[in-house]
Amino acid sequence: MITTDVVDPGSIRALSKYARVFSSTALDEASLTQLLPSIDILLVFFWPSFLTPENLSRMSNLRLIQSILAGVNHIPFAQLDKKVVVCSNAGAYSDEVAEYAWSLLLSAAKRIVDFHNAVKTDQWTLRRTLGGKEVTILREKTLGILGYGGIGSAVARIGRGLRMPIYAFSRKSIREKGVRSFQGDKGLSRVLSESDAIIISLPLTKLTNKIVGSNKLATMKKDAILVNIARGELVDETALYEHLRTNPEFRYATDVWWYRDGKESLKTVNPFFELSNFIGTPHVSGPSGLTTGKPAKFAVVNVLRFLRGLKPKNIVDPAEYLVTDRQEY
Amino acid sequence: MITTDVVDPGSIRALSKYARVFSSTALDEASLTQLLPSIDILLVFFWPSFLTPENLSRMSNLRLIQSILAGVNHIPFAQLDKKVVVCSNAGAYSDEVAEYAWSLLLSAAKRIVDFHNAVKTDQWTLRRTLGGKEVTILREKTLGILGYGGIGSAVARIGRGLRMPIYAFSRKSIREKGVRSFQGDKGLSRVLSESDAIIISLPLTKLTNKIVGSNKLATMKKDAILVNIARGELVDETALYEHLRTNPEFRYATDVWWYRDGKESLKTVNPFFELSNFIGTPHVSGPSGLTTGKPAKFAVVNVLRFLRGLKPKNIVDPAEYLVTDRQEY
Repeated sequence: MITTDVVDPGSIRALSKYARVFSSTALDEASLTQLLPSIDILLVFFWPSFLTPENLSRMSNLRLIQSILAGVNHIPFAQLDKKVVVCSNAGAYSDEVAEYAWSLLLSAAKRIVDFHNAVKTDQWTLRRTLGGKEVTILREKTLGILGYGGIGSAVARIGRGLRMPIYAFSRKSIREKGVRSFQGDKGLSRVLSESDAIIISLPLTKLTNKIVGSNKLATMKKDAILVNIARGELVDETALYEHLRTNPEFRYATDVWWYRDGKESLKTVNPFFELSNFIGTPHVSGPSGLTTGKPAKFAVVNVLRFLRGLKPKNIVDPAEYLVTDRQEY
Repeated sequence: MITTDVVDPGSIRALSKYARVFSSTALDEASLTQLLPSIDILLVFFWPSFLTPENLSRMSNLRLIQSILAGVNHIPFAQLDKKVVVCSNAGAYSDEVAEYAWSLLLSAAKRIVDFHNAVKTDQWTLRRTLGGKEVTILREKTLGILGYGGIGSAVARIGRGLRMPIYAFSRKSIREKGVRSFQGDKGLSRVLSESDAIIISLPLTKLTNKIVGSNKLATMKKDAILVNIARGELVDETALYEHLRTNPEFRYATDVWWYRDGKESLKTVNPFFELSNFIGTPHVSGPSGLTTGKPAKFAVVNVLRFLRGLKPKNIVDPAEYLVTDRQEY
């Protein structure tokens, strides 16, 4: 069962060779209710509102949930039977999100937003400088990447073009030219304290929730640049705000936002937009990847793998996602 | 004679082994006036105001002018004797300006300035899209580079990390992996009409003045992104404004500005900042390179070459710069 309209007809035809495919958006409530017990596989984008805990409990045949979003923190793991395999769509957005991460990092490094707004409002003049502090040169500075999956390695590839040595924080050791690999909490501390620019491309799990908190921020370089294109909740909101307020050379550029009542929200507790060392955009990096059609195709290929009796890729560990306050998107 | 304070003491010591070095900023007017006829070499940053046409005409010994600015369009060629060799500082800012060019290109491609300002003023919501038009994916799109010197080739190196095929417009044919080389006006037209993103890194000369005019703009892709980190006057101001106004998907991001009364000015004839497809920053790309100390050292190395009897690098052709309306910087 496909619960979204982002899947192309070609992909639906490919799935139809191996399965009876239903599109939930084409069904009325009565038909849906009747179908649910027979459904083996769910292909989901956002979590659909009709899949309430009650309806989900009636899906006794369910064996696979494939996400079209890269992350799976919107999946209600607590309500799933143990036999249900959940697959993320890691890798489907890598190039597009990596480009976006670089646009945030370079905008922050060169203070593009601030400069543009300052010239626009006649608050800057030519030949005025802040002794070179206005612009950060990235060449030969250290780039830290938290989470070295598809996005992380695409970020690194671009970083090598800028001649930046790369520190990767990940579960598995990375063997790649120009990349130093770090694991565990001690490794994370090393990456954060020694990097000049850091891009967060981690999944949001129980283990990574608020992984960048006040104690970690305190060890970072005073003029470091932190970029988040993963999930807002990976960074402690209030700790970050205090850090930005008291360290004007430190910069945070984000496309992702904290959750309010289980949903990502542009409304923050703290007034980030009053700070000139903050850049925020409305979660467009992933959607920009969607327009290529790649993410849906990528997810379908994984479902086809499962339908052919092969082990699907990107199986996540439910134990890492079992949280009471499930977050959408 | 050094006419600026941006040269480091180490470089002055190195020059002193081969020449008697005077710093114009440490001399009073009387001493300066007395010295001028004996000066062989000028090391200049901005053109110094004391070097009026009258004073310059008294420098009968002058043989070399070395610029610390990358370009030399601020040098008063019309007032120079034929025996004076003028050297640009091409290459001295390459990596820093290339990074800056990418920050402008990526900011425009991902509309970072607009998105930030829209979220800041509550004019955007999550999950709102413009059908994917809001963000340009650069991967596998064509990157045109006008002027393939130090900056141009550094821009290309970063572009390869983003997997962009590269079209280079330059005088000499370029033989580099992943680069297609184009020459002449026909070549320029090809690069402009077939590229998705174009970075201008040309020197400003008689030949390149307003090289991107209305006829060239008309041949470009409707959603192309044009980035200027060289000199404002390479683009026809009013033609560009009309093009941006009538092609909202076309974007122009610039760090450099048009001249008013012979001086670069943030004041434009047309109201560019009313357009959301314009990004402008106050000429900080070059100065950001200055803070590394590299440009002055680079210029000094070239003067040392001359002092040792070798041919200096980056000798420019005065004929290309002989304009009546000389422009500063």
